[in-house]
Amino acid sequence: MKKVGVVMGSDSDLGVVEKAVNCLEKYGVECEVRVLSAHRTPVEAAEFARSARGNGFGVIIAAAGKAAHLAGAMAAGTTLPVIGIPIKSSTLDGLDALLSTVQMPSGMPVATVAIDGAENAALLAIQILAVTDDKLMEKLEAARAENRQKILGKDKEIQQKFR
Amino acid sequence: MKKVGVVMGSDSDLGVVEKAVNCLEKYGVECEVRVLSAHRTPVEAAEFARSARGNGFGVIIAAAGKAAHLAGAMAAGTTLPVIGIPIKSSTLDGLDALLSTVQMPSGMPVATVAIDGAENAALLAIQILAVTDDKLMEKLEAARAENRQKILGKDKEIQQKFR
Amino acid sequence: MKKVGVVMGSDSDLGVVEKAVNCLEKYGVECEVRVLSAHRTPVEAAEFARSARGNGFGVIIAAAGKAAHLAGAMAAGTTLPVIGIPIKSSTLDGLDALLSTVQMPSGMPVATVAIDGAENAALLAIQILAVTDDKLMEKLEAARAENRQKILGKDKEIQQKFR
Amino acid sequence: MKKVGVVMGSDSDLGVVEKAVNCLEKYGVECEVRVLSAHRTPVEAAEFARSARGNGFGVIIAAAGKAAHLAGAMAAGTTLPVIGIPIKSSTLDGLDALLSTVQMPSGMPVATVAIDGAENAALLAIQILAVTDDKLMEKLEAARAENRQKILGKDKEIQQKFR
Amino acid sequence: MKKVGVVMGSDSDLGVVEKAVNCLEKYGVECEVRVLSAHRTPVEAAEFARSARGNGFGVIIAAAGKAAHLAGAMAAGTTLPVIGIPIKSSTLDGLDALLSTVQMPSGMPVATVAIDGAENAALLAIQILAVTDDKLMEKLEAARAENRQKILGKDKEIQQKFR
Amino acid sequence: MKKVGVVMGSDSDLGVVEKAVNCLEKYGVECEVRVLSAHRTPVEAAEFARSARGNGFGVIIAAAGKAAHLAGAMAAGTTLPVIGIPIKSSTLDGLDALLSTVQMPSGMPVATVAIDGAENAALLAIQILAVTDDKLMEKLEAARAENRQKILGKDKEIQQKFR
Amino acid sequence: MKKVGVVMGSDSDLGVVEKAVNCLEKYGVECEVRVLSAHRTPVEAAEFARSARGNGFGVIIAAAGKAAHLAGAMAAGTTLPVIGIPIKSSTLDGLDALLSTVQMPSGMPVATVAIDGAENAALLAIQILAVTDDKLMEKLEAARAENRQKILGKDKEIQQKFR
Amino acid sequence: MKKVGVVMGSDSDLGVVEKAVNCLEKYGVECEVRVLSAHRTPVEAAEFARSARGNGFGVIIAAAGKAAHLAGAMAAGTTLPVIGIPIKSSTLDGLDALLSTVQMPSGMPVATVAIDGAENAALLAIQILAVTDDKLMEKLEAARAENRQKILGKDKEIQQKFR
Repeated sequence: MKKVGVVMGSDSDLGVVEKAVNCLEKYGVECEVRVLSAHRTPVEAAEFARSARGNGFGVIIAAAGKAAHLAGAMAAGTTLPVIGIPIKSSTLDGLDALLSTVQMPSGMPVATVAIDGAENAALLAIQILAVTDDKLMEKLEAARAENRQKILGKDKEIQQKFR
Repeated sequence: MKKVGVVMGSDSDLGVVEKAVNCLEKYGVECEVRVLSAHRTPVEAAEFARSARGNGFGVIIAAAGKAAHLAGAMAAGTTLPVIGIPIKSSTLDGLDALLSTVQMPSGMPVATVAIDGAENAALLAIQILAVTDDKLMEKLEAARAENRQKILGKDKEIQQKFR
Repeated sequence: MKKVGVVMGSDSDLGVVEKAVNCLEKYGVECEVRVLSAHRTPVEAAEFARSARGNGFGVIIAAAGKAAHLAGAMAAGTTLPVIGIPIKSSTLDGLDALLSTVQMPSGMPVATVAIDGAENAALLAIQILAVTDDKLMEKLEAARAENRQKILGKDKEIQQKFR
Repeated sequence: MKKVGVVMGSDSDLGVVEKAVNCLEKYGVECEVRVLSAHRTPVEAAEFARSARGNGFGVIIAAAGKAAHLAGAMAAGTTLPVIGIPIKSSTLDGLDALLSTVQMPSGMPVATVAIDGAENAALLAIQILAVTDDKLMEKLEAARAENRQKILGKDKEIQQKFR
Repeated sequence: MKKVGVVMGSDSDLGVVEKAVNCLEKYGVECEVRVLSAHRTPVEAAEFARSARGNGFGVIIAAAGKAAHLAGAMAAGTTLPVIGIPIKSSTLDGLDALLSTVQMPSGMPVATVAIDGAENAALLAIQILAVTDDKLMEKLEAARAENRQKILGKDKEIQQKFR
Repeated sequence: MKKVGVVMGSDSDLGVVEKAVNCLEKYGVECEVRVLSAHRTPVEAAEFARSARGNGFGVIIAAAGKAAHLAGAMAAGTTLPVIGIPIKSSTLDGLDALLSTVQMPSGMPVATVAIDGAENAALLAIQILAVTDDKLMEKLEAARAENRQKILGKDKEIQQKFR
Repeated sequence: MKKVGVVMGSDSDLGVVEKAVNCLEKYGVECEVRVLSAHRTPVEAAEFARSARGNGFGVIIAAAGKAAHLAGAMAAGTTLPVIGIPIKSSTLDGLDALLSTVQMPSGMPVATVAIDGAENAALLAIQILAVTDDKLMEKLEAARAENRQKILGKDKEIQQKFR
Repeated sequence: MKKVGVVMGSDSDLGVVEKAVNCLEKYGVECEVRVLSAHRTPVEAAEFARSARGNGFGVIIAAAGKAAHLAGAMAAGTTLPVIGIPIKSSTLDGLDALLSTVQMPSGMPVATVAIDGAENAALLAIQILAVTDDKLMEKLEAARAENRQKILGKDKEIQQKFR
């Protein structure tokens, strides 16, 4: 199975990004976690993207805040699907990172998830790998079913509480 | 190869969505184009999502405007990757559709592209299918190279114009 | 008298939604409180909406945050009036939920109240039931009168404080 | 059957509001259309709201743009359900009217629909009246079924177009 | 000298509004402080506005949050200048109150100050009264000069600190 | 009677500002119209503000777009009331001018009206002058009454049209 | 004198960017105009930035729309001052480009000018070069003086028009 | 070497601005720190700008919040490059200051950095001075290289942590 690259623009994003890593591990999907900055280590970032496919990656997840260029920089260097996580920082509530990540020009898509949506980024990566991996797809379906049961359980609790 | 489902909430979205269809055809990726409304034909929409994997789909692209729920409705019914295109409508410049598409709750990712970003949605779908399809990946790389040449050509033109 | 269905997308919304339940109880309006997710339990959510009228409901209140599709999903399944409460979550101050709830396409209205406006959602439901229920309408009028007295009282206090 | 009051803050809003009137007429719901301004004819506006219930109204629809206070002024004068239509004007794309209409304080709900959503305002009014009027509810359901058929028809057309 | 009416939509706004009262007192401008709600005590609010000029008021300051209609309601009832203070509440950072206060329709101006700008509202009221009151104008000028000295003092401190 | 200074940052704002001038003339209020730029003729702008009171002005109206500093620059130079008109320009729909005009720091109020709200700026200036000028106040009241009659007329027309 | 690099992400930005080129030429500042895309020709873009200083450039102006990464990519590759022009595109009125350009992370400044502010970008570049070039600074001052005269002329015209 | 002027609109901005001063000191760039208010000490502010070049300044950094006019006021008084730092204050998350700083009219550029981006403002000032100062440019390059090493170090740490 292909690996997932999880890159973040700064180690201060780790608090959010960790949820993606945990989720990938739960599904048994191998990942490599990197700190690569579109601005401070652009050569390394470009090199990572350019060689990602050859190095066995199937999907790249990129997390960054503010003028969040990292996902776009990944997309520029590879034709692998790139998932962008806009990170909320100290001002503007993450709107800057969302628009910087999602409003990509024609020819260079970034699959953007919600602000701080690290778990969803991981799930999307797994869904992508599962397109041709029935076993992984079944794990996703099982998790969905389990998740559904949890909600149904909460539903019962709440129904009873307000009876 | 898996097919791509291209669904739109209203046939008035076709002007934008057609670019996705054209792009998929250019890459020889089979697609089915549907008008399915999260609100007006929810049963059919849910049924489409639920049976998508069994029917040979690998990715679903969903386009909708305003309170754009269609991509989320697709995501709720399948573990296939779902790509959302927020469509700009008569007010708010597409911000409503963008937020309604991208801000999905944990467990239900939608891979969101730019407002009216239909071509990028198609490219993202192709990138996803290409993760395990080297030939398709090479087509993407060739198109990138070609695109790069176009920009280099434009660069030369402009350089000369202003010399 | 018809019942009011109070549904929320996640039990984490209960802190806000509880105010709606308390308000309904104060007016002696029967309600059922449910956790139903447009994305995680879409079948149950759709079933709830579809059978709501038959099950004695007159109005449905739906509360959800982020890409808040729950009220829209209710509206898609019933012709009963559906009231949407946009819930503020960790980013964007509730603007995402507001736009996802209020910007519904033609044919599918959601009666949207203020962000986190659970008490108003309940009052609106009661007003709807009171259109043909004079006794309930009188209770609303009495509460208004009482509320008015409170403000008049506060007005007197403040006038005196600053004399 | 109770009447629906359709009030607008200025006759320049008529282009949008007319769709509400047409929709009400299509359903055979009697309405009165008024130009009442929260600011320029506040006494008449307040009087209309105060006497609405006694005059046989069941629901009030209020449309206004910019600092849209009309729906709130209606809500202040009656315990009937009040539906607000935010009207897009020359600046800010309707966001000002949306927030002025929907962000009502506790105790005074306004059932807000989408910016320029006049048809939905009418449908919501009809849904409210239909809570205790089975015949009207059946008309709504029939219209939904018809609307659904239209979408299904469009779906077939599009499927064939892209086959 | 004419009095200044200081009205707020809810006594919860007092924390902000108090700064306006203190400022007026500092300048020896008589004021009356009232809790008047455009929605909960509309009759009293309208009555206050209508009789304000006759009761010796020269300016009205109105503070309200969310869908802030109070300043507009004052403006509707009097031709005295009305100053609006948009109050920041629990969501949207005061943007809702700002737009609801400032975007008034033609014919009904509200002199809007910054979000939570109670002191400036008071100063504006004093400036208005000072147009024909040289003594008051001199007090304003003296305060400006004093304020200027304070800044010059701070400037010196900072210059020295960083020398 | 004191004069009203009407200043604009650029003669391209004249299309909007002219409505203010016309309104002032209708009321017989003398005004001087100036092009003064906070950035391009700051000395003249400051001089105008500084000498405004001495030159017989009672109120200053300042109109500017984008990073609209003109009203603030006027406020900095005089203790006369300054009214700001935010002008909508080619991007951001006037939001930039609105925030630049209204969000003034403590001590320097600008009485801000709606985006492009030139007529209201003039009316506000007249209201300010009318605080101590009963005749002018009566003109304002007469205009209000006339305006009210117009709306009542429109109301009748519309009532009949939809009977 | 050092040259100014004027780069744009797409030749469709030329309509705006041309104003920068014209302005530079008017001041006799040599420039090179390039189409370089952060995403489509990232290697060439990085190479341009990296070698800019050695190639005789003193300042780089970068113009891009949507998720505007070009200025940031330039900044990442050089320690020369980089000026960013956010370009307004078909949605969101340029807000996406503005935030993507200005909200740069610590260590990587981009000197951002107004949306579509190409002339100001050129002037800023000239100001930067003029810091150590008195002749160029005098040209800037002369242009200011001329500009000032124009405004003073307009001021006279308008004063007379409304006398 | 030319000095850098660091001006702030209020000493309450010092917490943010101090980072700019520290950064300038680290690079051995002389600076003068001032509290100058566009509104409260406009004469001093204008005087500072007007005489800045003659007093040996090469760049001015101006920090202000809300309707942030200080950078624009500096730009109006000098042809030296002016860098604007929008300061986040109690409402609107700094968006008001950003737009008031960046959306300058043609002819008067302000080089705007991120909200609260004081360190970047200092770096930009240093980059400007370094255009003709190779030694300073080398310091910038050395700092970049060091910064790059830090990120590479963090990258290694994180890689190991998740191995």
